[in-house]
Amino acid sequence: MSGTADLNMVNAYIPGRADVGPIASAMIARRDALLGPAYRLMYERPLHIVRGEGVWLIDSEGRRYLDIYNNVTSLGHCHPAVTEAICRQAQTLATNTRYLHDTILELAERLLATVPETGLSHLMLTCTGSEANDLAYRIAKVRTGGTGVIVTDTAYHGITDTVSQFSPSLGLTVDLGAHVRLVPAPRLYHAEGADLSERFTRDVEAAIADLRRHGIKPAAMIVDSLFTSDGILPDPAGFLKGAVDAIKRAGGLFIADEVQPGFGRTGTHMWGFQRHGVVPDIVTMGKPMGNGQPIAGILATADALAEFGVKSRYFNTFAGNTVSCAAALAVLETIERDRLMANAATVGNNLRDGIAQLATRHEAIGDVRGTGMFVGVELVSDRRSRTPDRALTGQVVNRMRNKGILLSACAMGHNVLKIRPPLVLSADQAGLVTEALDEALDEAKAAAHN
Amino acid sequence: MSGTADLNMVNAYIPGRADVGPIASAMIARRDALLGPAYRLMYERPLHIVRGEGVWLIDSEGRRYLDIYNNVTSLGHCHPAVTEAICRQAQTLATNTRYLHDTILELAERLLATVPETGLSHLMLTCTGSEANDLAYRIAKVRTGGTGVIVTDTAYHGITDTVSQFSPSLGLTVDLGAHVRLVPAPRLYHAEGADLSERFTRDVEAAIADLRRHGIKPAAMIVDSLFTSDGILPDPAGFLKGAVDAIKRAGGLFIADEVQPGFGRTGTHMWGFQRHGVVPDIVTMGKPMGNGQPIAGILATADALAEFGVKSRYFNTFAGNTVSCAAALAVLETIERDRLMANAATVGNNLRDGIAQLATRHEAIGDVRGTGMFVGVELVSDRRSRTPDRALTGQVVNRMRNKGILLSACAMGHNVLKIRPPLVLSADQAGLVTEALDEALDEAKAAAHN
Repeated sequence: MSGTADLNMVNAYIPGRADVGPIASAMIARRDALLGPAYRLMYERPLHIVRGEGVWLIDSEGRRYLDIYNNVTSLGHCHPAVTEAICRQAQTLATNTRYLHDTILELAERLLATVPETGLSHLMLTCTGSEANDLAYRIAKVRTGGTGVIVTDTAYHGITDTVSQFSPSLGLTVDLGAHVRLVPAPRLYHAEGADLSERFTRDVEAAIADLRRHGIKPAAMIVDSLFTSDGILPDPAGFLKGAVDAIKRAGGLFIADEVQPGFGRTGTHMWGFQRHGVVPDIVTMGKPMGNGQPIAGILATADALAEFGVKSRYFNTFAGNTVSCAAALAVLETIERDRLMANAATVGNNLRDGIAQLATRHEAIGDVRGTGMFVGVELVSDRRSRTPDRALTGQVVNRMRNKGILLSACAMGHNVLKIRPPLVLSADQAGLVTEALDEALDEAKAAAHN
Repeated sequence: MSGTADLNMVNAYIPGRADVGPIASAMIARRDALLGPAYRLMYERPLHIVRGEGVWLIDSEGRRYLDIYNNVTSLGHCHPAVTEAICRQAQTLATNTRYLHDTILELAERLLATVPETGLSHLMLTCTGSEANDLAYRIAKVRTGGTGVIVTDTAYHGITDTVSQFSPSLGLTVDLGAHVRLVPAPRLYHAEGADLSERFTRDVEAAIADLRRHGIKPAAMIVDSLFTSDGILPDPAGFLKGAVDAIKRAGGLFIADEVQPGFGRTGTHMWGFQRHGVVPDIVTMGKPMGNGQPIAGILATADALAEFGVKSRYFNTFAGNTVSCAAALAVLETIERDRLMANAATVGNNLRDGIAQLATRHEAIGDVRGTGMFVGVELVSDRRSRTPDRALTGQVVNRMRNKGILLSACAMGHNVLKIRPPLVLSADQAGLVTEALDEALDEAKAAAHN
């Protein structure tokens, strides 16, 4: 999920803006007729992808694209360990959690082993990250007796009716719930020497106080631990602590949304929250969990689940099905066996270093940040004022696509390049990204002067 | 999904009630520790299923069970056409709806071809039936400007935060939303000569009036077109029409929840609503759609979607992924090629006839009903008063399991056997069900007398 379905996204196809050729044009018309008006395609010139292979996507004309955006296929497209697990299990048994089965138990043991000494002790499975956040919020309401929820101002947590009401990045056309409070995202680049941790804590405390003044009891603070839709905001590690303490003091739960940051992408930890030295009551996960096979879920403490387990049963037909569990188990095994976290750390650093060097000759690069295979590049029209350059960002995203490199954008100003390569990206491939970005920035600058 | 996650369900495992043996006992303890208190297992003696093959599930000791409950694997477990489609596509490309792809368009064309002359013109995809109903409700709110929703009194529509609030079968522990009104399910067997159509229409009109008196504008009436959780209530065909007219007159949408009845199970139509000669604004579907692969979705009219398409974008990472679409396409092709609707009609009738004959010697069988491969058997302690016999139903469900036949129960009184065989069930296999049910009823009667 891009995390930003806003209709004005710089990465979206807009009819008539670019010549897409007669074949794509006909396919787009057919698609609009069949799928209706709520769907969007990526890029000025949408891609007709027919095959995936490792870091590459291949279109109907055989052209290859380096996919450094899709953090679902985090092991690379069609990874043999995962496809083998899917095929084998689909041919053996595809069924639900109402029967005993070993795979779900092995998966639970393996996932819980990634969070030792946190008190997170149970796994519950869903099909999508949206369902995971929806379930986490249901649990928080039962546990706390409250409904209030605090999220950052450009957060994305999903598309169920309830979760969309606390996903402000969906844009002004989707109403926030009356029980939802937004706090400014922790934007270090724009914090101008302030103590970010103190500021973020204060903002969360103010939101809690405002909920209470409206007679709304806090249920939870939910944050993407890398603040992906807010613009990829990893630093300084540890800044979350005060805010987590504040929500817990107020009787609310801390829910770490790891749907985008999770599964080793940070390069240093399995989960983004671990970089901050905080302990969530609930962790939600999804996207790369099955490397493409639909599976998502939550880890929760026994305390968070106790009352929910009495009050509600949870059964979700497809969630925890044997095939999806087999895929997820293969993903975890591959991350470990191939030491993909280490690769994410090394190659992610290469990539950031390479882009940081570009900043010496491209004034538009205001900031390069991230951790592991999660990179944000903030593009500005003026380095002193740090003014977002949304138009340039749109240009760069589309020019990169035309050069065969797929990425996108995020943040309130739509001016942060969002780069999430598969964990298997090589240093040479990272080099291709830097080269192409260098060219794309030059071209975009030249185009702006014409 | 059983449609009834109520903690008192007659089909659920209750610790200590039956001796499950040391191996299962250890596995259950491990499962409880890992998955926590919100999960339930089926049957007094839970099953450890390791393999599926057509109509059969096979446990870890090699024992075979005729699975006439799971309407996900509607073509039979591990159907080769579907597993082949899943393997092929998983090895080729697993990606999302932000790129052009043929499979999703073919799937949309094929699904829309099942509803000619209805005005249903667009397909949107989700991962689960819960997400489909959640999305349908979001769309209804945008289209109507209302929030009120009318459902039957033991309905099940899903487990998102929003949908659980209009799923009364989840039990009294889950709060209904203040904007939700329940109408009595259309129970012909208990209607005692009344005009069921008129009564149901009047109840819906009263619910609309009550919403308005509370200042709540109606958004939708949502019904499972076979009233599955309410007890499987198919007759008389056509009784829905007045209620559908009433909700449309009131400015609300009619949403047909086909998650359980859909995909040819009725034997006469692809969708249950078609038996009633009514036209939904939105149809939701799921369960058998991918024969086990997670995929669900909605069909909607252009009118229902028009404003939603402007106000909201819809992107769901895993929904409409190429692998799930390939599986769904294989399901549709198989239903058609193997004429499975015709088989559902024929063998479903055999099954109902066989059970109806049992009623001549089993007083407990109050009613046998259904359509196609959807059969409800209402068990009563007294035929005149039609008093639900919940205890007997629990006995029968567990005794059938012990005889190697898997089914479950539904309805407010938990006294309706819920039988949903795969569409490929043979007449001989239907005979096995009837024989086993004959024995189970005898045994349960004898046990009650001891």
